[in-house]
Order: sequence, then C-alpha cells, then structure tokens
Amino acid sequence: MRTLKLHIQYLGRLYHGWQVQPDRPTVQGTLESALSRMTGEKVRISGAGRTDAGVHARGQVASFTTASGIPARGILLGTNSFLPEDIRVMSVEEAPAGFHARHHAISKDYDYRFSTATVLSPFLAPTVESVRGDMDMTSMERAAEHFVGRHDFTAFCGPEGRQKNTVRQVSVSRFSEEPGTVRVYRISADGFLQYLVRTIVGTLFEVGRGRIDPDSIPGILASRDRARAGPTAAARGLTLERVHYPEGM
Amino acid sequence: MRTLKLHIQYLGRLYHGWQVQPDRPTVQGTLESALSRMTGEKVRISGAGRTDAGVHARGQVASFTTASGIPARGILLGTNSFLPEDIRVMSVEEAPAGFHARHHAISKDYDYRFSTATVLSPFLAPTVESVRGDMDMTSMERAAEHFVGRHDFTAFCGPEGRQKNTVRQVSVSRFSEEPGTVRVYRISADGFLQYLVRTIVGTLFEVGRGRIDPDSIPGILASRDRARAGPTAAARGLTLERVHYPEGM
Repeated sequence: MRTLKLHIQYLGRLYHGWQVQPDRPTVQGTLESALSRMTGEKVRISGAGRTDAGVHARGQVASFTTASGIPARGILLGTNSFLPEDIRVMSVEEAPAGFHARHHAISKDYDYRFSTATVLSPFLAPTVESVRGDMDMTSMERAAEHFVGRHDFTAFCGPEGRQKNTVRQVSVSRFSEEPGTVRVYRISADGFLQYLVRTIVGTLFEVGRGRIDPDSIPGILASRDRARAGPTAAARGLTLERVHYPEGM
Repeated sequence: MRTLKLHIQYLGRLYHGWQVQPDRPTVQGTLESALSRMTGEKVRISGAGRTDAGVHARGQVASFTTASGIPARGILLGTNSFLPEDIRVMSVEEAPAGFHARHHAISKDYDYRFSTATVLSPFLAPTVESVRGDMDMTSMERAAEHFVGRHDFTAFCGPEGRQKNTVRQVSVSRFSEEPGTVRVYRISADGFLQYLVRTIVGTLFEVGRGRIDPDSIPGILASRDRARAGPTAAARGLTLERVHYPEGM
C-alpha cells in the first residue's frame, strides 16, 4: 500500500464543512468520491483541519492509503477532472508509510479576513467578511496579544470543543493588512477547537467596538465561561492557510 | 432632474452580460430593478461598457437621471441592500447635467487574466482563465505591441462589431504578472467592439503556442478577415477595469 499526501484548496461557501455527513455536500465527501472514481477503490481520506461549513482552505492537507499504482501526477490531474472547480487538489505526493495528515500535524495557520469598507467589492466578498462600523484597531491588536501562549480555551469554543482537552498553545495572534482595505487576523496554534478562531474573532470585534476591554481577555480565558466571550464570527472570513509537519513528512 | 454617476463592480459569471435582455438575468437589468425600488421611479441606466455574458467589471460606470431627492449616500446603501452580493454599487456621485456614462467615456482599460499553472487555485478560478500548455511569452509580448495605434479591427471582432465603424485607437497593449502565477494582458483603447479583447487574446494564445507568427499581426489586421485571427478566448478571464472621462466629469 502507498500513502499519499494531498495539498487541497477550496472555497467553502457551498459545502457543509470538511467532514463527511450523510446527504449533504461536504469537501471530504466530494474529494472521496473523486478519488474513488480515480483509483477504483473506496477511498477514505483524513484531513488535517476539520473546517466548518462555509470555511475556506488554501492549505488543507489530507492523506490516504491506496493499492493503486497510478502515478501521483495522474491522480492529481484525474481527480481534479472529477471535482467541481471550487475544490482543487493542488499537489499529490508520496508520503512515508503511516503518515496521517491530522495526527502528524504540528501546527496550523488560520487567517480571518474582514473589511470595514462601506461597500465590499464582489471580488473580495467570497472570502472576506464585511463588518459594520469603525473598529479600534489599536485595542484589537492589544487584545490579540493576550491569546499568545498556552491557555485553556473553554471560554472560546463551541459545545463539541468543550468535550475535549481544551488547552492549546498559540504561537501567533496578530493583525495585518492586505490590498483593498482588507484586514487579516492570523492565528497559529498546535491545534484548534470547534469555533475557536471565529469566537476569538467575534470577541476581538467586540473589543474593536469598545464593548469588551482588551485587557479583560486573560480574565475571560481564566473564567472558562463561553458567555463572557463575544459572538461567533461568520464562517465566510475564515481560511485554513497552512498545516505544518515535522521535516520529511 | 439630477444626473447621477455610479461606479459599479460585478462578477459576471451568473449574468447574461451587461445589457438588458428579456427573461434573462443581466447586470443592467438587476441594477435597474434595485434602483427603481430605491427611487420609486422606473430607472433606466446607461453603462460605459456593454460587457458580454460572463465578463466581470471592477470599474464599470453608469449614469441615470432621477427626480428623487434621496441623498447620494442613501441611494448607495439602499440600492446595495436590494442587490445580490456579486453586484455592488461602489459609489454614487452627482454628475453634471447631461453626463452620459457611455457617450462621454474617453477610453477604457480591460484586463484579461490567465494562468498556465497545472492546477488553478479555486481562489483565482472565478476571474482567471486556465490555459493549457507552455506559452512563449516573448512572442506574445512582441505580438501584443502590434495592436498599439490606430487600426481597423474588423478581423478581431464579432458579427455585431462589424456593423459599426471598426477603427479604434489602442494606447496600451501589454502583459504583466500578478501573484499566484497569474498573467495579465492589459488593453486600453478609445472604444471597443464585440468580442474585440477576447479575439485579440485568443490570437495571442495562438502566438504563444507557435501557431501564429507574432509579426503576422499587421497582416491579419490589414486583411480585415476574421478567419485569420485566433479563436475568441473565454469570457471568464476578462474584466473591465476602468473607464476614463474628461476632467470634471
């Protein structure tokens, strides 16, 4: 058996998230159908990030094992010919036996894009969330710094996230800008939890509007009380940008 | 009566072009419905560029007259609330009486985006055409230069274009690059004809593939024979970027 590693990009708008669900279009399900047609086997893939409904990926990674002898480039081109154009396999590589896209991931980078422009360009709208009103970026930047480090994120995740170990190590939490008045919040961590990025972003928006004090973040984290954080921001602005692995994987 | 000037952006994929057609969604028709709801009048707008089905615009300009007293900013926000998110009015300005978006346009800039990457990112796919095979960019750049100047474009336009005066002055015809392996062909002219940009681009692709000699362009122009030019390139890569007016308009 070969183990293959796929680099995948998708626009999430038309999908009920990554993970297979019965009777609903999902990214994983759409990919498994295309790979199964391509290899003639019943393919099951493991994805590094279980993105929610509407969330995009520029750097999703998935793995699967196959008995097929089709060369990697043949799988790449053939699979894409069976996929809708909003999901693309960008590359197919042979991986070490036992490689598992989720288990071996060291960390992931997510970006949340938003704009406070009066009118959001249709060229940006598919992956950028439009946010009303002025935002105090200085306060938001200050609040964002408080997420860096090792924290219990119970206050910042959804009900499924709270079923797990909720401690995560955040290495990057900061804002930058892109052309077209787009602001980007980047968060990198060793793992994520359900709605984690979107709850952090929703909280940072409340900070930007002056409704939450930037220095109250440590207290909210310590409270482990979801009710003290802000609302969950819309999926549209969120993109899984990259998954990091140990060297050689 | 006031004359208003609108700056408009749209993704063309879901529309049968700019111009109103019975029983088909068009950009003009969608905008006129929204403006009519907003003003309570039956609004007819004039657009600077009659973009074809599937063609996008980042810098379309349209004008209309209205007896409505609603402030420009109210029209901007209200109209957008009645529009699908792939069409946006980016600004509304008071224009001099008699201003007409098409008649007063001095020149327009169109960009055609394409990529020869093996796999085209879904983030780019909505506005970038995927082109197979290696392209000899040096030949294409040489060919593009031949379009600059005053020419009869009968050989490079569709049947409707050939019903008109087919002489146009081209001021810019050149290639550049954008991030993500995207190449851009920019053409600026005092006016365009049906399928003009897409026929020029389709011909430049043939040059890139070695099927048309770059220095045969002057001969093809002089022949006024559509059969000697290349095929019409797909609409997806084409965007109306900007419309230029005399100062003060």
